[in-house]
Amino acid sequence: MCVACNHTIHRAQHNFGWNKDFSPALVAKPGETILFECLDSSGGQLGADATLDTLANLDFGKINPVSGPVYVEGAEPGDALKVTIRKFHPSGHGWTANIPGFGLLADQFKDPALHVWSYDTASMAPAAYGPGGKVPLKPFTGTIGVAPAEAGLHSVVPPRRVGGNMDIRDLTSGVTLYLPIEVEGALFSVGDTHAAQGDGEVCGTAIESQMNVELTLDLVKGANLKSPRFTTTEPVTRHLDGAGYEVTTGIGPDLMTGAQEAVMRMIDLLTAEHGMNPVDAYMLCSVCGDLRISEIVDMPNWVVSFYFPRIVLS
Amino acid sequence: MCVACNHTIHRAQHNFGWNKDFSPALVAKPGETILFECLDSSGGQLGADATLDTLANLDFGKINPVSGPVYVEGAEPGDALKVTIRKFHPSGHGWTANIPGFGLLADQFKDPALHVWSYDTASMAPAAYGPGGKVPLKPFTGTIGVAPAEAGLHSVVPPRRVGGNMDIRDLTSGVTLYLPIEVEGALFSVGDTHAAQGDGEVCGTAIESQMNVELTLDLVKGANLKSPRFTTTEPVTRHLDGAGYEVTTGIGPDLMTGAQEAVMRMIDLLTAEHGMNPVDAYMLCSVCGDLRISEIVDMPNWVVSFYFPRIVLS
Repeated sequence: MCVACNHTIHRAQHNFGWNKDFSPALVAKPGETILFECLDSSGGQLGADATLDTLANLDFGKINPVSGPVYVEGAEPGDALKVTIRKFHPSGHGWTANIPGFGLLADQFKDPALHVWSYDTASMAPAAYGPGGKVPLKPFTGTIGVAPAEAGLHSVVPPRRVGGNMDIRDLTSGVTLYLPIEVEGALFSVGDTHAAQGDGEVCGTAIESQMNVELTLDLVKGANLKSPRFTTTEPVTRHLDGAGYEVTTGIGPDLMTGAQEAVMRMIDLLTAEHGMNPVDAYMLCSVCGDLRISEIVDMPNWVVSFYFPRIVLS
Repeated sequence: MCVACNHTIHRAQHNFGWNKDFSPALVAKPGETILFECLDSSGGQLGADATLDTLANLDFGKINPVSGPVYVEGAEPGDALKVTIRKFHPSGHGWTANIPGFGLLADQFKDPALHVWSYDTASMAPAAYGPGGKVPLKPFTGTIGVAPAEAGLHSVVPPRRVGGNMDIRDLTSGVTLYLPIEVEGALFSVGDTHAAQGDGEVCGTAIESQMNVELTLDLVKGANLKSPRFTTTEPVTRHLDGAGYEVTTGIGPDLMTGAQEAVMRMIDLLTAEHGMNPVDAYMLCSVCGDLRISEIVDMPNWVVSFYFPRIVLS
């Protein structure tokens, strides 16, 4: 329940993909606060009792539902939608999967793998990972955005300048996000809630977890934003940086190859020094490790680093 | 002065570039600690009284000297050199420049620009930036590595699998770095000391600052590392994350373009909201802002984010 909310978008009020011609689930005034009942990115297909069989039979037509859309009165192309992320109501369960064909190292990890998580919604204490480790939690919205101007149905998978499936792990409570508006009313939707994720989401999934989220929608008229931006007034990594990091690198002329190499080296390290099997290490990297660009100017070789928080294994 | 050191590499003992046939400046035993008197990346050309004229007359043949090399007894190809970074002795002055033709946005910033810094080596308090802001300091070694196996002289500019000009801003005191050894004796050198830098070093320079550094060199026999890695037992961003971040994004199918767009949007923000001129904002981004890969799996569009620490402007 949300005491401060003006409206609720109910779980059934969702769509698959973005389309400026979707009927609004709600017409809201700027400044109003809304409780969004989100689904997880499997649309409820992977529950607490999910197995590899459930994963193998996943209906990809029901992936990544987004709750909405909300038509914001007075919103016009060229304005920015100011989204204040107020509060998450986590469900206490989630999943992480290696889905064949998907993820940074899809060529190397061709077999499906699944880990089902449970966590304490009162304490939000770090969640145990069966193969080893405890992952600090920080809920956020993986998919959050407005409708693109271009007509027709757009896949929810790629993010765009209007936001969408950005998977930015710092879009958490207390943050203010600004999205470029391309259509009248903005047509805002949200979903794909995550309990934790590292920068990169390297295996393709986070701790995918159903949650409800309270958001305030407002307008900045004539902002003419070129891409999404956000403000956080709090540190972003203190829940997991206390014991420092193990860091691996990928060095060379291509950032994508550098990112792949840095993650492969971390999987090597976790398997050699912590007895984890490679796909478990890969999924653990996805939910807590960070891809950073250490340097992008020392021609012709760039350095991409992968930061794994030591607290997870301590 | 270094009480715990076994040896000193003096300032004159430096080279330009890497070459397995350079004569060792020192033969050290594994486990010994050495004080390296480093030069800054201009080789002393840009001092406290440097101007745009000095910058215009820079001799690029004297760029990025590295102190050494140290031949480590018993080091063989396939071993790793374990470098414990013990302590920095900073000089209190430094410089940041936009050098035409160099940097992530070289196409947009074609004119030279220079900022000369001074800072208190006792307090190491955040250093004032003339155009606005104070930058928290954290000294590190920009260039640190061993000689590549391939014969001949190799430019110091690009980093390689044996390390070198990696510009990883977390290679600071307390860190243990592991470098793949390719030649007998390892032939270790270090230089290019920085007082502060963000991930990416986006304008191409950091707070370039002369410092001496104490390092312990040791061996891990038969490590067969594929690329450099390091361990930090401390958090890496708490000196600058206290007030949170302003974050801009670049979204699309190419990580390099995404990085450029994210930095351009941050320069837009700093010029619009903080009255900075663009090249000053660009140089400030380079010394304190971080390039992170938020997601690299939502085909075909990746998200690169640029994190600017709000404490710098508060």
